[in-house]
Amino acid sequence: MEKMTYTPVPVVNPIPWSELKKNTDGHVTVVVQDEKTLQVLMVAYMNEEAYEKTLATGRMTYFSRSRNELWIKGGTSGHFQYVKELYADCDKDTLLAKVDQVGNACHTGSYSCFFEKII
Amino acid sequence: MEKMTYTPVPVVNPIPWSELKKNTDGHVTVVVQDEKTLQVLMVAYMNEEAYEKTLATGRMTYFSRSRNELWIKGGTSGHFQYVKELYADCDKDTLLAKVDQVGNACHTGSYSCFFEKII
Repeated sequence: MEKMTYTPVPVVNPIPWSELKKNTDGHVTVVVQDEKTLQVLMVAYMNEEAYEKTLATGRMTYFSRSRNELWIKGGTSGHFQYVKELYADCDKDTLLAKVDQVGNACHTGSYSCFFEKII
Repeated sequence: MEKMTYTPVPVVNPIPWSELKKNTDGHVTVVVQDEKTLQVLMVAYMNEEAYEKTLATGRMTYFSRSRNELWIKGGTSGHFQYVKELYADCDKDTLLAKVDQVGNACHTGSYSCFFEKII
């Protein structure tokens, strides 16, 4: 359920979007991990607006490559992701978010998108 | 240290490379996680050769975008990653590898590449 009065965890080091390295499509890759179980839930992408919205609201916000629009995770499904920790990697081209996941992260109804075992 | 007699964990479901969805550069994104602590270590990319080598050898093998060549992780540094589990996500465009990490995953000497805290 959405937290109506959610107060975001403070941003300690607001790396400017301009300092992040973008992929060929102009996006930054984001790995999303359950803050409690440390299960990796999904990978998604941010554009500048999504990054700024995530920092400002504390709710994971992405750029949907399939719909070509801003995607507030949970905005339709109610499956919000509240950001507890956010890190940039050594190259500043990938982010890692530890989140409080409401419901399931995957649109298939699975908690994590990574359920197809290869090895 | 490299395991000279390493026997790879069996591949249970060898999804063909042709069934994976590639990004604009023709690569597949790989999230790498410590199999014991579940810490996310790094994100890298595979081309077909890297994917096939990883399945065949049990050692994480990537495509280096900066050097434009096959990259056996640890081949130079000794910091090999032995694959314990490998998953595809629901879109089949991202892989998650749980690995036995030798030494440090990051070229900076950090265990994980995700050490720059934003939130």
